[in-house]
Amino acid sequence: MSNRIELYGDSISGNCYKLQLACAQLDIDYTWHEIDILAGESRTEKFLAMNPNGRVPLMALPDGHYLSESNAILCYLADGSALAGDDRFERANVLRWMFFEQYSHEPYIATSRFIIQYLGRPEEREGDLESRKGGGYMALDVMEQELTDNDFIANDKYSIADIALYAYTHVADEGGFDLGNYPQIEAWLERVEMQDGFVGMKGSEPQGSDPNRLHRH
Amino acid sequence: MSNRIELYGDSISGNCYKLQLACAQLDIDYTWHEIDILAGESRTEKFLAMNPNGRVPLMALPDGHYLSESNAILCYLADGSALAGDDRFERANVLRWMFFEQYSHEPYIATSRFIIQYLGRPEEREGDLESRKGGGYMALDVMEQELTDNDFIANDKYSIADIALYAYTHVADEGGFDLGNYPQIEAWLERVEMQDGFVGMKGSEPQGSDPNRLHRH
Repeated sequence: MSNRIELYGDSISGNCYKLQLACAQLDIDYTWHEIDILAGESRTEKFLAMNPNGRVPLMALPDGHYLSESNAILCYLADGSALAGDDRFERANVLRWMFFEQYSHEPYIATSRFIIQYLGRPEEREGDLESRKGGGYMALDVMEQELTDNDFIANDKYSIADIALYAYTHVADEGGFDLGNYPQIEAWLERVEMQDGFVGMKGSEPQGSDPNRLHRH
Repeated sequence: MSNRIELYGDSISGNCYKLQLACAQLDIDYTWHEIDILAGESRTEKFLAMNPNGRVPLMALPDGHYLSESNAILCYLADGSALAGDDRFERANVLRWMFFEQYSHEPYIATSRFIIQYLGRPEEREGDLESRKGGGYMALDVMEQELTDNDFIANDKYSIADIALYAYTHVADEGGFDLGNYPQIEAWLERVEMQDGFVGMKGSEPQGSDPNRLHRH
């Protein structure tokens, strides 16, 4: 049995990319198993035996334990490091933004991107897409306000909360969200990309149409 | 300035009740500020200055820091205690179920309860309610499976993950979800209610119609 952790994920998923970025910055080796969610590979009997919730990413530890939920895995990877926060309040405040990401950001921005980029924007989902606009822009408004006074989203220090929110914010345009009115978020994206050990997301669309993106990557 | 923490919440909200239960079991004193969400009190200028995301619960610390997101506040309250998990994996596994609760459970079960109990089940929300059935039962299926082999939801030990999931599962019927086919969940609800320091939720409907409920409380 390997001593490395094993990560099961789909490279098109920002939730899975979070773990690649955190491992690169925490210098953690891992074995990657590509799971094609569009081909139903997260719903097979074998996969459901590892994660009954049928979602990627999933981590397998050398001792046989499994862990699901991208942000919980981020907490495992960063446990005890500065990326998780330095004291009781900071740790909880990092988690605050990670729960915000999963409840108030991901269901709007990531899901819209999935419908547009990977389901091919089917006609019957137009109403669904439209209904996700308000929530997505509300989440971006909250982030813009926080980043007006702070370089990073939690405790004004780079953390796994930035990793969690970067994952889908930097491809918000692929979900139909225009970041043009969010200069603080744009500047924060650049700060995240300048952190030591930063790696980009493989699964996203080429950004040739946006010169700022090319500049940033 | 008080040395106690201050909690802002609405007693009808399971997310707010989580904190009352955790404080009772962790023996933490607090001052409670009732915020009537139906009257818009979480959207006033004063409240938004404390939490730009406009949601309850919210915690204010004696040093002036604010913390939002119910599950992040639970982590603050339980930090370093057995309720948060005993090692790196356990802590992350507790968080796994708390992220599951916010992403895969609350938007279906808690939101349905809110529409039925507090918005009076308006005609125009029937389609919305119907669309939340599948996700809610899927979350209950995942819990039922986990509780078949375990007394508690994470690490087979009572934790803040049980508190987070108990909050809306024990009133799932108020959201139109029938727990009749979930014997493991029913038994787990009783185990949670037998924990030292357990306190019930004030804001829920009288349970006279359900003899099991009366028995449990």
